[in-house]
Amino acid sequence: MAAAKLGLEDLEVGQVFVSAGREVGADAIVRFAREFDPQLFHLDDAAASTTLFGGLAASGWHTAAITMRLIVDSMPLAGGVIGSGGELLWPKPVRPGDVLTVEAEILEVVPSHSKPDRGSVKVRYITRNQHGETVQSFTPNLVVMRRASSDP
Amino acid sequence: MAAAKLGLEDLEVGQVFVSAGREVGADAIVRFAREFDPQLFHLDDAAASTTLFGGLAASGWHTAAITMRLIVDSMPLAGGVIGSGGELLWPKPVRPGDVLTVEAEILEVVPSHSKPDRGSVKVRYITRNQHGETVQSFTPNLVVMRRASSDP
Repeated sequence: MAAAKLGLEDLEVGQVFVSAGREVGADAIVRFAREFDPQLFHLDDAAASTTLFGGLAASGWHTAAITMRLIVDSMPLAGGVIGSGGELLWPKPVRPGDVLTVEAEILEVVPSHSKPDRGSVKVRYITRNQHGETVQSFTPNLVVMRRASSDP
Repeated sequence: MAAAKLGLEDLEVGQVFVSAGREVGADAIVRFAREFDPQLFHLDDAAASTTLFGGLAASGWHTAAITMRLIVDSMPLAGGVIGSGGELLWPKPVRPGDVLTVEAEILEVVPSHSKPDRGSVKVRYITRNQHGETVQSFTPNLVVMRRASSDP
């Protein structure tokens, strides 16, 4: 689990990280919705056609969870990716067969004065579908450790 | 799926909806993390003890997904619970065995001028653990249909 993890000292404003792509199938959309968001437009394509969505769409929380997985796999931080929240927006729904990619841009890097082993990093994560349309944006502040200080 | 669903005309500022409680087990925390957020502090209690979390903690996205399930079960809206995002904060992590409850407070109700069958409703969802501590707050704007206009 060690290898080339990034620490606070490796990050600077303007850096961009791009994830791999991940296809979201109808089965996965329905499976997630059954457990966490059992509403018609996330469960059944025919029934969904009569709703505001006009057809089956992934729960926004499913989009968010897939985004997190793509982030963990593409932006390995020493100490882990730890955020306390931020502005979360879903401009468009994710549809069955969509292929999602996440682009992370570093907006701010602020070393901590009181805790020299870490800092606060603001990141904008944009999740796009295969047409380049934004399906989610999330802009959290992360706690990022210096490389030597932690090694999870 | 019909029954006593709430429409825009049933909502007013200051109304509060409270969900049932739901226990979050260690197994569920690890299962969610394996799929969506495979970081040590969400996967293994012993390994997590060496991290900022100091022990196993649920992914924030798991907390969010459970919150959504509690909302769907406790606040049945005609047309469904449809949001385009908002401010999402996790002041404290969810721990194995925590019992979560969601309180929804209506902050704004704004009928649409251009689309008389619907309106915009701002809601603050606070998710608390069994000690009354806030583990998540989320403040989205929802699209809410009038009762007669939709029936999913």
